Amino acid sequence: MSLLADLRAALGDAAVLEGEAMGAKSSSDMSLTGTSPPRALLRPRTTEEVATALRLCNAAGVPVIAQGGMTGLAGGANPTGSEIAISLELIRGIEEVDTASATMVVKAGTPLEDCQRAAADAGLFLALDLGSRGSCTVGGNLSTNAGGIRVIRYGMAREQVLGLEAVLADGTVISSMNRMLKNNAGYDLKHLFIGSEGTLGLITRAVLRLHPPPGEITTMLCAVESYDHVVALLRRAQGTLGGIVAFEAMWRDYFQFNADALKLRFFEADHPFWVIIESTMAAGAIEAFLAAALEEGLIADALIAQSHAQSRQIWSVRDGHPIEALPNLLNFDVSLPIGAIGDYAVACTAALKQRWPEAHVSFYGHVGDSNVHICVSTLYRPGEDMHSVDDIVYGVLGRYHGSISAEHGIGTLKRPYLHLSRSPAELALMRTLKQALDPRGILNPGKVV
Amino acid sequence: MSLLADLRAALGDAAVLEGEAMGAKSSSDMSLTGTSPPRALLRPRTTEEVATALRLCNAAGVPVIAQGGMTGLAGGANPTGSEIAISLELIRGIEEVDTASATMVVKAGTPLEDCQRAAADAGLFLALDLGSRGSCTVGGNLSTNAGGIRVIRYGMAREQVLGLEAVLADGTVISSMNRMLKNNAGYDLKHLFIGSEGTLGLITRAVLRLHPPPGEITTMLCAVESYDHVVALLRRAQGTLGGIVAFEAMWRDYFQFNADALKLRFFEADHPFWVIIESTMAAGAIEAFLAAALEEGLIADALIAQSHAQSRQIWSVRDGHPIEALPNLLNFDVSLPIGAIGDYAVACTAALKQRWPEAHVSFYGHVGDSNVHICVSTLYRPGEDMHSVDDIVYGVLGRYHGSISAEHGIGTLKRPYLHLSRSPAELALMRTLKQALDPRGILNPGKVV
Repeated sequence: MSLLADLRAALGDAAVLEGEAMGAKSSSDMSLTGTSPPRALLRPRTTEEVATALRLCNAAGVPVIAQGGMTGLAGGANPTGSEIAISLELIRGIEEVDTASATMVVKAGTPLEDCQRAAADAGLFLALDLGSRGSCTVGGNLSTNAGGIRVIRYGMAREQVLGLEAVLADGTVISSMNRMLKNNAGYDLKHLFIGSEGTLGLITRAVLRLHPPPGEITTMLCAVESYDHVVALLRRAQGTLGGIVAFEAMWRDYFQFNADALKLRFFEADHPFWVIIESTMAAGAIEAFLAAALEEGLIADALIAQSHAQSRQIWSVRDGHPIEALPNLLNFDVSLPIGAIGDYAVACTAALKQRWPEAHVSFYGHVGDSNVHICVSTLYRPGEDMHSVDDIVYGVLGRYHGSISAEHGIGTLKRPYLHLSRSPAELALMRTLKQALDPRGILNPGKVV
Repeated sequence: MSLLADLRAALGDAAVLEGEAMGAKSSSDMSLTGTSPPRALLRPRTTEEVATALRLCNAAGVPVIAQGGMTGLAGGANPTGSEIAISLELIRGIEEVDTASATMVVKAGTPLEDCQRAAADAGLFLALDLGSRGSCTVGGNLSTNAGGIRVIRYGMAREQVLGLEAVLADGTVISSMNRMLKNNAGYDLKHLFIGSEGTLGLITRAVLRLHPPPGEITTMLCAVESYDHVVALLRRAQGTLGGIVAFEAMWRDYFQFNADALKLRFFEADHPFWVIIESTMAAGAIEAFLAAALEEGLIADALIAQSHAQSRQIWSVRDGHPIEALPNLLNFDVSLPIGAIGDYAVACTAALKQRWPEAHVSFYGHVGDSNVHICVSTLYRPGEDMHSVDDIVYGVLGRYHGSISAEHGIGTLKRPYLHLSRSPAELALMRTLKQALDPRGILNPGKVV
C-alpha cells in the first residue's frame, strides 16, 4: 500500500505501526465494544506531522480516527477496521502557565492530571476533573466536551477552553489560540471542534482557562423527602452557600444498595432521596444553611463530614462500585430539564418494571447541571435482545425533551438514538457542517452524524 | 418589484414597509454610521413568517439584514441600501419561566429588561446586563454575543444560552431549544448563530439559563500602585471574596479626568490605578480582605461605599460621561491576555503621543475578563485622516496578541482590521462556514467575513 509507504517516508518508520505493535488499546475505548484493530497506528510528534498525515490520507481517501487515552464510553474512538488511527499521545507537554492571565497552553496528548498538577504548582486550579484523570488526555476531553464532577460550579470542558489549534481533514492547521475571556472578533471557531468527537478536525493544542484554588471544601449529606425538595434545596444552596462545588442526588434504591453493601449507615431512618453538597463556605455559614433548611422542611436530616475519611465514606456510596456487580448492569448518561428529572425517573422505572418486574432500576446524578445516570439490571437471560432496554430508557426520555447524552458523547453506541434528541433539521445542519469541513468524509466516519 | 408583492401577499401589507414609514431607526445602529435606509422593512410576527420571508428573498437572491433594538456600536445591523431589513421586534414576549429548571424561553424581539424583570418576578436572576437594557433586544444580544458588566462572574451572552431557534438563509427553521446545562448529543449548533451577527442565520427564540439572585452587593474603591498589583488584587479577590460581581480598573488619566469634572474626591492622594470591586460577601469578610490587601501592599488605600448613593458616585466615575465631551473622542473596545494589558497601555499611549503629543489617551475596563477600553482624543483638525488612530491602536494590539473586538463585535467598522486578530486559515474557515450555511450570500452581506 503506497499510502503507508508515503506516511513512513514523511513521519519516519517509528511513527507508523502495524499489526501486533499497535497494542490492544488502539482497538477499543473503555466501553470495550471495539473489535477491530485499525489498519495502521500513527504516532506523530508535532502538529505539522498531524497535518502531513491528514493531507496524505485525505488525498488517498483513507479514513482517519483520532485516539487519545481511550477512556471514552461511547465507542467514539473505536476503529471499524478500515481506518488509520492517529494517536495524539506523543504530542504532549505543557507549553506555558501564565499566572497573570490565569491561562495555560497545553498539547493535546497531555494527560489531564499533568495539566491539573501544573496549574496547582503555579498556585492556580484547572477545573476539569474526571475519574480517569490519570489516563485520559486533554485532547480527548475537549473533543468529547467532557463533563465530570465540577460542572455545577465551573461548567463543562467547553467552558474551560479559551482557544485551540486543530487540523482539518485536508491538513490545514487552524490556529485559534485565543487567550482572552472576551473576544468577539469574528466567528468563535473553537466550538466546531469541541464535542464533535474528531469528526470535523483533530485538536492538537489548547489554551485553557484557570481559576483561583477553591479553598477548603466541606462535605454534607442531606436526607430529603421528595424530588421537589431536592430542587428547592439545590436553589437554596446556590443562593446562600456561595459557589457550591458539588451537588449529587441519589434516589433511595441507589443509595441503599451501595450503603448496605459497603456496610455504611449514616442515619437511623430511611429516606427517598439523599443529597451530597460540597461548599467552600465557612463552617458557621454551612451550619446556618442546614439549620434553616431543616426548619423549613427542605431536608429531613443532615450531617457534616467531620474528617476527610468521613467525606470519602459519603462519596464511596455515590461512586457506587457495589452496584456495578449487579448482573449485566447497564449505566445510562442522560440529561433532562431539571424540573422534569423526578417525573422521568418514575415513568422510566414503571416502563422498565412492566417489561422486567424483577429489574433493579436506580438513579443518581449531578442534577444541578441537568444530568442523571440510570443503572438498570434486568437479570436478563442469554438470547434476550438488550436493545429493548435502550429503547425504553431513551423512548421515555424523548417524551420529557431530554438528551440521550449528557456528558459521554454519541460515538457509535448512541448514534441509532440521536434522532430522539435532535430534529431532522438539526441533523441535516450537522451533515452540512460535516460536508463543508470534511468533504471526502475521512474523519472518524460513521460517528456522531 | 415582484419580490415585495410576494412578501405582501405572504405577510400582509402591514408587515412590509417602505420609504418614510420605515423610520430612521432602520438606517443605522447607535454608532450612527449608517447612511442608507433599507430597500424595505419587514415586520414578521412569527418564526414561520421569518422563514417565509427568507425563503422568498433567497429565491430572489436579494440580501437580508436582521434588526433588533439597533443599539449596536459596530455597524453590524446597518443597511448599505440594497438589503431588505427584517425587524424581529414584533416577535416578542416571554413564553415560559421554569423555576425548577431555572430556565426561561423568550422570543428574539423581547427587550432585555423585560426578560430581566420576568426572571426577577419568579425569584430568579438573568445575568446578562447592558446599559441599553431598555431598548436592546435579546435576539440582538445573542447575535452579537453581548458582554456587559457581569461577565466576570457569569460570562458573556453565549454562556447564558442553553438553546435557540434560528432560521437559515433558505428558510429552514433550526429548532435547537435545548433546556439542559449538559447535552453532548451531537454538534452544539447554537454556537454558530451566537456572535455571528446575523450572517449565518436569524435567531428567533432562545432558552436562557437563570441563576439565583446574587444578594446584597457591596461596592469598594481601591487605590493601586501598579498594573501588576491590579492583577494580584484581582486574583486575591477571586480567591477570597467568593463570587465577585464586578472588577473594574481605571488608569489615572481616566479616573482623574472624570472625578475632577464630577467634583468627586475620594482620597487625598493621587494614585496610578483605581479599582472598583463588588462582592456579595458579608461585611466582615470584605473588611478582612481589604485589611490583608493593605497590609501586604496590594492596595495603597480603600473605601467601602456606605450607601447606595456613594456606590452610585463611585460608578459615575467609571461610567465616564465627562470624558465623552473631549473633542472627537474615539472609544475602543479591545481585549488582551490579562497579564499583557499593562504593557499594552504603555506602548499604545507612547505610539499615539508620538504622533499627537497633545492627545488625551486613557484606559479603563473590566480587566478580569481581558477587556480594556481606550479613550483617544487627538484634538485633530478637519481633513486629518482619523483612520490613523485605528491603525496605531490596532497595530500595537497585534503585537500583544490582542483582539480588536472584546464585546462590540466586528460589523462593518472593524472588518478592515479583522486580519490583525485572526489568521488567514481562520478567515478561510469562516468563509467556508458562510458558504455552507448561506450559499447565495444573502444574510447581512459585507459584515464580519
